[in-house]
Amino acid sequence: MVTFGVIGAGRIGKVHTESICLHVKGAKIKTLADPFMSDEVAAWAKDLGVENTTKDYHEILNDPEIDAVMICSSTNTHSPISIEAIKAGKHVFCEKPIDHDLAKIKEVVEALKGTKIKYQVGFNRRFDHNFEAVRNAVASGKIGEPHIIKITSRDPEPPSAEYAAVSGGMFLDMTIHDFDMVRYLAGCDAEEIYVQSAVLVDPAIGKAGDVDTALITLKMANGALAMIDNSRKAVYGYDQRAEVFGSKGMVQTANDTQSTMVFSGDQGIVAEKPLYFFLERYMESFSREVRLFVKAIEEDTDTPLGVMDGLKPVLMGIAAKKSVEEHRPVKLSEIQF
Amino acid sequence: MVTFGVIGAGRIGKVHTESICLHVKGAKIKTLADPFMSDEVAAWAKDLGVENTTKDYHEILNDPEIDAVMICSSTNTHSPISIEAIKAGKHVFCEKPIDHDLAKIKEVVEALKGTKIKYQVGFNRRFDHNFEAVRNAVASGKIGEPHIIKITSRDPEPPSAEYAAVSGGMFLDMTIHDFDMVRYLAGCDAEEIYVQSAVLVDPAIGKAGDVDTALITLKMANGALAMIDNSRKAVYGYDQRAEVFGSKGMVQTANDTQSTMVFSGDQGIVAEKPLYFFLERYMESFSREVRLFVKAIEEDTDTPLGVMDGLKPVLMGIAAKKSVEEHRPVKLSEIQF
Amino acid sequence: MVTFGVIGAGRIGKVHTESICLHVKGAKIKTLADPFMSDEVAAWAKDLGVENTTKDYHEILNDPEIDAVMICSSTNTHSPISIEAIKAGKHVFCEKPIDHDLAKIKEVVEALKGTKIKYQVGFNRRFDHNFEAVRNAVASGKIGEPHIIKITSRDPEPPSAEYAAVSGGMFLDMTIHDFDMVRYLAGCDAEEIYVQSAVLVDPAIGKAGDVDTALITLKMANGALAMIDNSRKAVYGYDQRAEVFGSKGMVQTANDTQSTMVFSGDQGIVAEKPLYFFLERYMESFSREVRLFVKAIEEDTDTPLGVMDGLKPVLMGIAAKKSVEEHRPVKLSEIQF
Amino acid sequence: MVTFGVIGAGRIGKVHTESICLHVKGAKIKTLADPFMSDEVAAWAKDLGVENTTKDYHEILNDPEIDAVMICSSTNTHSPISIEAIKAGKHVFCEKPIDHDLAKIKEVVEALKGTKIKYQVGFNRRFDHNFEAVRNAVASGKIGEPHIIKITSRDPEPPSAEYAAVSGGMFLDMTIHDFDMVRYLAGCDAEEIYVQSAVLVDPAIGKAGDVDTALITLKMANGALAMIDNSRKAVYGYDQRAEVFGSKGMVQTANDTQSTMVFSGDQGIVAEKPLYFFLERYMESFSREVRLFVKAIEEDTDTPLGVMDGLKPVLMGIAAKKSVEEHRPVKLSEIQF
Repeated sequence: MVTFGVIGAGRIGKVHTESICLHVKGAKIKTLADPFMSDEVAAWAKDLGVENTTKDYHEILNDPEIDAVMICSSTNTHSPISIEAIKAGKHVFCEKPIDHDLAKIKEVVEALKGTKIKYQVGFNRRFDHNFEAVRNAVASGKIGEPHIIKITSRDPEPPSAEYAAVSGGMFLDMTIHDFDMVRYLAGCDAEEIYVQSAVLVDPAIGKAGDVDTALITLKMANGALAMIDNSRKAVYGYDQRAEVFGSKGMVQTANDTQSTMVFSGDQGIVAEKPLYFFLERYMESFSREVRLFVKAIEEDTDTPLGVMDGLKPVLMGIAAKKSVEEHRPVKLSEIQF
Repeated sequence: MVTFGVIGAGRIGKVHTESICLHVKGAKIKTLADPFMSDEVAAWAKDLGVENTTKDYHEILNDPEIDAVMICSSTNTHSPISIEAIKAGKHVFCEKPIDHDLAKIKEVVEALKGTKIKYQVGFNRRFDHNFEAVRNAVASGKIGEPHIIKITSRDPEPPSAEYAAVSGGMFLDMTIHDFDMVRYLAGCDAEEIYVQSAVLVDPAIGKAGDVDTALITLKMANGALAMIDNSRKAVYGYDQRAEVFGSKGMVQTANDTQSTMVFSGDQGIVAEKPLYFFLERYMESFSREVRLFVKAIEEDTDTPLGVMDGLKPVLMGIAAKKSVEEHRPVKLSEIQF
Repeated sequence: MVTFGVIGAGRIGKVHTESICLHVKGAKIKTLADPFMSDEVAAWAKDLGVENTTKDYHEILNDPEIDAVMICSSTNTHSPISIEAIKAGKHVFCEKPIDHDLAKIKEVVEALKGTKIKYQVGFNRRFDHNFEAVRNAVASGKIGEPHIIKITSRDPEPPSAEYAAVSGGMFLDMTIHDFDMVRYLAGCDAEEIYVQSAVLVDPAIGKAGDVDTALITLKMANGALAMIDNSRKAVYGYDQRAEVFGSKGMVQTANDTQSTMVFSGDQGIVAEKPLYFFLERYMESFSREVRLFVKAIEEDTDTPLGVMDGLKPVLMGIAAKKSVEEHRPVKLSEIQF
Repeated sequence: MVTFGVIGAGRIGKVHTESICLHVKGAKIKTLADPFMSDEVAAWAKDLGVENTTKDYHEILNDPEIDAVMICSSTNTHSPISIEAIKAGKHVFCEKPIDHDLAKIKEVVEALKGTKIKYQVGFNRRFDHNFEAVRNAVASGKIGEPHIIKITSRDPEPPSAEYAAVSGGMFLDMTIHDFDMVRYLAGCDAEEIYVQSAVLVDPAIGKAGDVDTALITLKMANGALAMIDNSRKAVYGYDQRAEVFGSKGMVQTANDTQSTMVFSGDQGIVAEKPLYFFLERYMESFSREVRLFVKAIEEDTDTPLGVMDGLKPVLMGIAAKKSVEEHRPVKLSEIQF
């Protein structure tokens, strides 16, 4: 039995709390910490079987009964709390991204050196049933050598311009998942990136210095060419697809829907829209990733998505920004780390 | 080169005339006959390369240069003209049905005995790309032994009640194609039939003594169970599907559409409706069936759909009517022939 | 908070135990009873939060803290335990079928009269996302008046001939779910039933006096015609589809799959097979039905699927058997109740 | 009636000859010219109704009865014969591309100035039912403002390395169709192009100085971002898809297949591969484009695809090559014309 402390009771912290309590065998949460812990949240946590709630996450770090820490606090605290937790000898599951600052991620990498700490980053989409099926097909050699990888990733609605401004920009906030996905599907790193982007959804996003639409071309280390297309607003809902084309065939995934129901009427043949957004679409992946983290602890193996896997997409996001600024293809090796 | 005379320049007569002139290599039409031949139709035929037009189909029967007669006249003339043509030594392609009266079909059967005449009936759906693919899969053993056969056949709009009254009723007018199809897909005859029917589309059809909706269960000679569902009105268009389920798998066809275009909008994911009706859906089958008729003449082989194949669906239609009247399963062997 | 006792710790009893403990808010299980309760099962239940385990289900009936009983024992005990539980003042969730003997179901109906007991029967498929979407479309008037209802229900593999013999036969064991489904989709009762059946999958099933393949035609009280097709063995997996066709359109569901992944290779375009069997396909429906049962208790409303809904499919199964024996359409009104 | 002379009796010349004779009303072919005209081809043409065959295409240019010339000769003769035909006062339908050399295309543009000659280029895909449906949806405003355009275009097998060497390279030989398509779907010109390409299919193609796999990013004049992905070899067949995503929705097309048949077996659910190659996939478009050419002549309107539409994709192909050579995004305005 792995005993967790969860730090952060915002949206994603609650998702993980409920998910661990209900769907992760061999795990329990002893303490949930949040600086704004309310009576309501505390009661909700109790109801799920969480023993203890607190406003001070150090209670978790100092508790010898707690094996693993789940970091769901605000992004700028991910790396410092990671380091504190590592120093306290706790295994760490850190929500994405570790940090927007490569130097701070590097500190986490350093802190892990020489320890037996298991560290996992929350790029949950790898644990989605559809993307996992695609990756398995690629890894098994079913499509031969991969030649072209295509990822479509579009949100159902844009964030507020304020959020866009503080989020690190679309590449570090939204595309970062796709950067992880392209590494996952290709089974290797990207070497070069070129971005063609635009502000087509909301001029306020442009005024805040960000973009909302992008085509991103990548050259992967295994020779495959890859392409990500992003939009902050698809009126038909969350569009999350992938296609990998290779020497022996192609694998593709479609979107998930609430049901397979199709209506045939005088206006056409109408199927359901995709599940609305990431909570609907990826809920199951949140428990699957934690089950694998627990397994890595129990069996003393590597986590499926370690600190370097957390770093690489940030590197790619920084290269993407540079490509936009300098309007040219940028090699990943140009980015200092 | 097979030289045709076409008798009847109504809708289906025109379809065959154009189809033979443009799409059937090794065939030409010398004469088109219709009692109401107009200057306009005559000019249209000339333009297609038809040498001659007439109001008297005997010109065709008496013309020693004409090898084959295509009978596209009104249903009640199919069997007498068939017999005249056979006596004149012409090969015969007869539109469906040969007749609604089994005795008259029997006369055609008798007239053919001892001759070398090729006789083919126009159940064109057998020559549709989708249904042919299903049949080929069944015939090749791909699905093993057939257990369940399902045919969906729904028109986009009902005929007028007047037409319904003179058409012989839904079973002999519309379902007759599905009776042929179930024999084709099963590769054998039906032994028993049970009909559950209703008037749900248009009360006037009921007043005219006919039905507009039916579920028809059949037991086939090879042991398979079969089911046809019919409606005279599907608001989304002509619904023409089949499914054959067997010991090793299942084959299914979907409807054809004008394009594969799909629109994803805030109301759903919308594909096109099926092609509107039989002229849109089955146009290609009209030339394919005639090409095979021509081939049978040239190679002196059996036609793919002979006089007995024309008779059997009529027998099934009569059994279906009896099942409705007596509200019980009816064996095909109960119908005298 | 509704406190449950669960009677029966076989496959379906375990499904419900886990489902209630993890997925039904506002419900808990105090006691799990099974005559063959093992240490292993007891430990498993403890782990899920079940307070108590026993070999004697009377502990449940006699416990004043327990509000509701979930009957997951063998079929022949469903009705007597139902009656005992009703007499003990417990709400009852009874797995399907209540009984194969109409007289015994009648006793349950009688026992409920004049009580405030909530009684629900476990026809879980009504609570499946796909079938619920179809029913909602029909109930909302989206397809107008229903004309034709089609249900495909095929198992991935047949039961042993021994099981087939004691199960009450295919109609009471397997088709009974489809009988419930046709009532649910139509929103009314069946009036007449005709069965065409065969032994095509396994001769041993025939020797045991049962059938393994059937086409079942029904006339519904609202005038719609309905059709169920059953097979005990679909090599491609559990085939669970429905189609409702009406005056304004059609709704259909397809099978669920593990992922949306499609492989395009030199042999064709290959999608996944349906989820293997009912545990994979319908898992979510097991918690949804219990959540609605809990809600009915809490809000003192009717359960969504009461004792008469439990009885009707048994009536239909008996009529189906009679149709096979007498080879004719049978009116439901012919079956004495 | 428009009277044609066809120059070139290779594969595409034969396609057009048959297509005009059988499927283009109001058009006939008087003469078919080919320097290697054989008795066999001459007989085949006669059989289709072509009056005359010759080895010298000047017979066509000098024939006052001929209204229009269809140029199906080898690529390097397209522009000189175009100019000769224009000078002879003939309308011209020229197979793609007009030339690989912009200067030579410019000569054609000049030759047309001040004449009433109708000139059309054979980018037939615009007249495909699927792509036309997508374009119509975009043009009608159904998807709002276009944001992202994606074209997948993959051949079933690579050309020989010898052909690759003389074809002008993948961008001018294969992608040129996609360059036309992106202009058609966007309804405007491209402004900038960036290519990421590779040799992944056949090293011999690389040795011949060409590529076989590419991701091409474009910025369109209306602000939309576009993406073409090309491969010379898709083992599952000719992959021809498009997707246009905009502010109000998305339209997509799928590949066409020989039938809609789907087989469900123990290995999965198998649909048919796409139609094999361009002759199978686009046959109908060849007659549709000529019908519109004939209409433009008869009604004295612009052709749907004039000389500038023929030039632009060549310009894009040259820019694409430059992007590969200089490994940077290239503005179309950089290419001198």
